[in-house]
Amino acid sequence: MPDFPPLRPGSTIGILGGGQLGRMLALSAARLGFKTHIYCPDPDSPAFDVTPGRTVAAYDDEPALADFAARVDVVTYEFENVPVRTAALLGALKLLRPGANALAVAQDRLAEKAFLTVNRIPVAPFAAITDLDRLEAALAELGTPAVLKTTRLGYDGKGQRIVRNMEEAALAWELLSPRPLVLEQFVPFEREISVVVARGLHGEVAAFDAAENVHRDHILKTSAVPASIGSRTARQARLLASAIASALDYVGVLGVEFFVLAGGRLLVNEIAPRVHNSGHWTEAVCVTDQFEQHIRAIAGWPLGDPARLADVVMENLIGEEIETIPAALGAAVRPHVYGKAVSRRGRKMGHLNRIVLKKRAR
Amino acid sequence: MPDFPPLRPGSTIGILGGGQLGRMLALSAARLGFKTHIYCPDPDSPAFDVTPGRTVAAYDDEPALADFAARVDVVTYEFENVPVRTAALLGALKLLRPGANALAVAQDRLAEKAFLTVNRIPVAPFAAITDLDRLEAALAELGTPAVLKTTRLGYDGKGQRIVRNMEEAALAWELLSPRPLVLEQFVPFEREISVVVARGLHGEVAAFDAAENVHRDHILKTSAVPASIGSRTARQARLLASAIASALDYVGVLGVEFFVLAGGRLLVNEIAPRVHNSGHWTEAVCVTDQFEQHIRAIAGWPLGDPARLADVVMENLIGEEIETIPAALGAAVRPHVYGKAVSRRGRKMGHLNRIVLKKRAR
Repeated sequence: MPDFPPLRPGSTIGILGGGQLGRMLALSAARLGFKTHIYCPDPDSPAFDVTPGRTVAAYDDEPALADFAARVDVVTYEFENVPVRTAALLGALKLLRPGANALAVAQDRLAEKAFLTVNRIPVAPFAAITDLDRLEAALAELGTPAVLKTTRLGYDGKGQRIVRNMEEAALAWELLSPRPLVLEQFVPFEREISVVVARGLHGEVAAFDAAENVHRDHILKTSAVPASIGSRTARQARLLASAIASALDYVGVLGVEFFVLAGGRLLVNEIAPRVHNSGHWTEAVCVTDQFEQHIRAIAGWPLGDPARLADVVMENLIGEEIETIPAALGAAVRPHVYGKAVSRRGRKMGHLNRIVLKKRAR
Repeated sequence: MPDFPPLRPGSTIGILGGGQLGRMLALSAARLGFKTHIYCPDPDSPAFDVTPGRTVAAYDDEPALADFAARVDVVTYEFENVPVRTAALLGALKLLRPGANALAVAQDRLAEKAFLTVNRIPVAPFAAITDLDRLEAALAELGTPAVLKTTRLGYDGKGQRIVRNMEEAALAWELLSPRPLVLEQFVPFEREISVVVARGLHGEVAAFDAAENVHRDHILKTSAVPASIGSRTARQARLLASAIASALDYVGVLGVEFFVLAGGRLLVNEIAPRVHNSGHWTEAVCVTDQFEQHIRAIAGWPLGDPARLADVVMENLIGEEIETIPAALGAAVRPHVYGKAVSRRGRKMGHLNRIVLKKRAR
């Protein structure tokens, strides 16, 4: 690996994607003295409001990508579905952090599960599904219920169906094929948690505390910290997340979602090679939050301390829930509004961090 | 007072001044979903990098000011020396928060001391100096040493001289007149502290904990929290700061500097009608920091909780000290780099917040 001196303040960080994650990365980069350049096809992207550099172009617009690369010192991204060709092109022109490897693994459920299995990270039993015969055999092997999923581009519950028998499986196959599919055993879990972990340029890792996540309509609604799990399970989750980051030779911040089974056993549900919605609580109560940590990592700076100073519950504001701002703000609530022009049903518009204060003499 | 509904996210906040304070205000405004428009004569102002709206024009450029006012929903400022005529013009066109009254008081040491005295806020004995005879009489009355200061435009130790006898007083008079002057008794103090206080649109106040300030070459070097003062003195400082904000019918964040005398007696040294350098620690350890608090106040939002989650020492990075970033960063140190292109001697380039972590089982 060629030596990379720490990026100096005043350098420019290129960010692919102009949504709320790109915006929050840009805000943190500004606090560290970096300029940012956002690349996004949508001219109304909220991140454009907080950055001096802007490119509005498609992700396959090669001249625009080359121009973008020439204007920045390092490239990162806010979403895992950066096209492979885009990542390869940018990676050839400029440092790309995290690397294309993390994208390749995270974009494909089958590749992700294979990667995790090879690295002895526990996942739910699964099988690649190429045809109906294979689906029937896998269903017999894994048992029911099971979940049939597309291997690519699934999010917020899209691209998946629970199946309880072969009849439902055949129906799900009709709906989801001919895309590549994977069948997963439906594991009865007690709760879902996630760990956001950072890995620096020289291999150091720093994991945030585990958050306990609750979804509504397949969209993350709340992340509470600490999670109601034992300290051994919490430590194990941080260790597994750190092991994944190391196995990927990762640089930056990575989100890892887990199922917690009875007795505290952990299975990895999925990984996201980016700052993560379930890590938004860190901005309110951590010495270093996930956004600053990601910027520090990709800039080759030493990682910050992920220590947590208080208990907290992060709540997503979805669709018209954003209208409760500012009337419903309690004093110990830290709001974050993403600056999106239009609130649509199911669209993440902002979040609240409710901080749990201990009584303190003044 | 006409009713003012809370500013809705997506509204635009106009900020006079494009230095680090304006930049930090803009970053906090963005987190609350506001757009910002920065007005500053210097095209290289660091705040321009984080705002969608920019005006580069002189503070007496009336067409530019009118255009600026038309583009924003409320106007605030990052420095107290906004020309009175500029404030009056903007105040006639748009809501100006804090109001012109606070500027008038804070721009003139004599007006400030008179205002404080009328409101029974303790200050060091002082006298307006209009000629040498008056200076001699005041020196006899207040005793030596004393400090002769210009009433306007003093900062970082500029525009003031310590005088120990009439000979030095005459020399100081030569140097500082014909500007209006004030003589202050030099009060032997044990330490300097400051309190940043916010006052909301409906009169509610919220004071941050007092910080203990150390200057180097007349420039703030560190602010430590908690200050090494008794809890009664700390409470008294918060009460005095709150009383000043209320007496000014203030909306926004106000900085109040105090001398702490033997036995804990407090004298107000000066007030600043804006976010304050000695409040930069709040961004690292408070539920709501001074920048968010200022934006909430001027937007008519409920104030946030100023509660502090950890002990902290803020250290200014002055001139070439900025070059220690990132090499000298400890893990529990939160850096803030202002993005100024050129570091000059005595120029504030950034700051560090060193957070004091309590041992915690993980």
